[in-house]
Amino acid sequence: MSAPIRADLALVGFGNVARRFVGLLDECRAGLAHDHALECRIVGAATRRRGSLYRAQGLESAQLMGNWGGQPVATSSALQIIEHLRESDADLRVVVETTTLDIRAGQPAIDHLRAGISAGCHVITANKGPVAFAYAQLRDEAKAAGVQFLFEGVVMDGVPVFNLVRETLPAATLRGFRGVVNSTTNHVLTALEHGEDFDAAVARMQAEGIAEADPSLDLDGWDAAAKTAALANVLLDARLTPHDVRRTGIQRSDGERARSAKAAGRRLKLVASAVRTAPGAVSAVVEPSELAASDLLASLDGKANALVFQTDVLGEIAICQLEGSLAHTAYALLSDLITLRRRQEQPAAPARRIP
Amino acid sequence: MSAPIRADLALVGFGNVARRFVGLLDECRAGLAHDHALECRIVGAATRRRGSLYRAQGLESAQLMGNWGGQPVATSSALQIIEHLRESDADLRVVVETTTLDIRAGQPAIDHLRAGISAGCHVITANKGPVAFAYAQLRDEAKAAGVQFLFEGVVMDGVPVFNLVRETLPAATLRGFRGVVNSTTNHVLTALEHGEDFDAAVARMQAEGIAEADPSLDLDGWDAAAKTAALANVLLDARLTPHDVRRTGIQRSDGERARSAKAAGRRLKLVASAVRTAPGAVSAVVEPSELAASDLLASLDGKANALVFQTDVLGEIAICQLEGSLAHTAYALLSDLITLRRRQEQPAAPARRIP
Repeated sequence: MSAPIRADLALVGFGNVARRFVGLLDECRAGLAHDHALECRIVGAATRRRGSLYRAQGLESAQLMGNWGGQPVATSSALQIIEHLRESDADLRVVVETTTLDIRAGQPAIDHLRAGISAGCHVITANKGPVAFAYAQLRDEAKAAGVQFLFEGVVMDGVPVFNLVRETLPAATLRGFRGVVNSTTNHVLTALEHGEDFDAAVARMQAEGIAEADPSLDLDGWDAAAKTAALANVLLDARLTPHDVRRTGIQRSDGERARSAKAAGRRLKLVASAVRTAPGAVSAVVEPSELAASDLLASLDGKANALVFQTDVLGEIAICQLEGSLAHTAYALLSDLITLRRRQEQPAAPARRIP
Repeated sequence: MSAPIRADLALVGFGNVARRFVGLLDECRAGLAHDHALECRIVGAATRRRGSLYRAQGLESAQLMGNWGGQPVATSSALQIIEHLRESDADLRVVVETTTLDIRAGQPAIDHLRAGISAGCHVITANKGPVAFAYAQLRDEAKAAGVQFLFEGVVMDGVPVFNLVRETLPAATLRGFRGVVNSTTNHVLTALEHGEDFDAAVARMQAEGIAEADPSLDLDGWDAAAKTAALANVLLDARLTPHDVRRTGIQRSDGERARSAKAAGRRLKLVASAVRTAPGAVSAVVEPSELAASDLLASLDGKANALVFQTDVLGEIAICQLEGSLAHTAYALLSDLITLRRRQEQPAAPARRIP
């Protein structure tokens, strides 16, 4: 086992996912030290509305979790927190970005990551924006700065999607993918099949914490489009934004369509897909599609998500998430942290060509 | 990019998979050199019935593929070929094992791998025997000898199963798994649902090259049991052999059962599963099971295989192979070869604890 290395983390965004991540780090502290020779402490947390905290000696979880512990809160911004992190003498300095998705341009998350990279910090994000709007630039900037840029939680929470392709399919080339990647619409479509009213179904999803207070990002297909752009940018070397994805959401009139499909032994699903159409060209679509019962995607209910990858040498393979939760997204951040640490051991792993 | 490294390969077993592997290596030669800085040559091939060949300067594919090129064949054994390989001055010396499964004790494949390890060679196998009968010993012997022991093709061909868990789920713990892992029985059960006679369905599978001339290893559940033992040994730290798996195959009387299940909206599938029952104890079963239509495994037809992993932090996740073929198994060997080469760059990656 190698010598333990110390990581200092600054949390940019401190909502439910970040809070769960703090808890998970506490629960996994012994395992991280034992299995991965990694010692983590959280030195900063930045929020937009409640100010920010930074303590070079590390913040206590109780202080973070207990509404900042009733302490007076510094008013420094996320960018100032990142500047503080630059001064840390830890082996790894890591910015953990979990602000909410901005569907217009992926901001300010992109600026947060860019500031982290400029400050010589590794960056981990659960926010789709940076990967959906600026993947290639951030990847190149991170490479030039000698830091890692990781984002496994962006699609299907902690279920490995990006790592699956990059780490375990070293000799396969992706031609495209299709999948069900948004849980809210999947829940609503299932409810519509059972005869539930559209608005009632959405209201129930909101009451159960599945849909957001403003569910339009999900229902209008924007969340799926952001994930599609992220997947296409990383796995197909595309240069898309969510606005380049041909997008149709779900609406009230889909109730009848879902029921008649079901009656005919088919399922209506919001399917996200992308395919290489020519060298350097990728076409991407999000739209409700009627699927045959024999289609793997047709078997997915409620929280279940799946992606089917079209490969050259292995035909179609699929990865499925049968459950999803905030805890899974928090786990994705932990998984990225371990990936970061593992890569410290790999000074010159051969790059994988994405054709 | 790192300096190119040279690999000398000895093929032990030279059936359809090995022949396809030779073709694949030829097709991928430029990509291997460019993307992975790896230059491979095949220096030996050993068969039980047609003798063996060894040429330190490398064998031509045409010579290998063309019925040994009509050349006089040396009578040296697989073990002698491995002794020759020991003398190679290549950066990587690799034994590639593709003999057929022996369900009594996994031999002589285990002896082939053991001889390779003793000779300081890395070992790659597409044969389930060594992993199903002697995983822990071979793993420990390989570790002590400083060589790699890889076997991604043993379950679901080249679809990443072992690598998925080891490389991409670094902070998750597996509690168990269930899956459909044998294509012949899956084909036969689907045919039975459509009213086809059991013997006629098996005969058709044989004619189509899906079932073996002797289909009993598949139909009696031995193939699935070997895969179950292999998965349990590697992923759940079990010490099983296929004989420790509670096993029920499929038989003529399952026709009626498959049809009545189908009529009730359910599917009869040969399900392989294993679960930790206590620290250090794993229980494994292969048996026909009636699955609800909402079960992911129920959606798999014909060649489709899938494994559902039960994890602590991510709930259930599944990986699915929607097509399968000899080419996919050959690809698995290539994938292992690239993994081998990648690990040359990682002198001291932290070991993952399997609890």
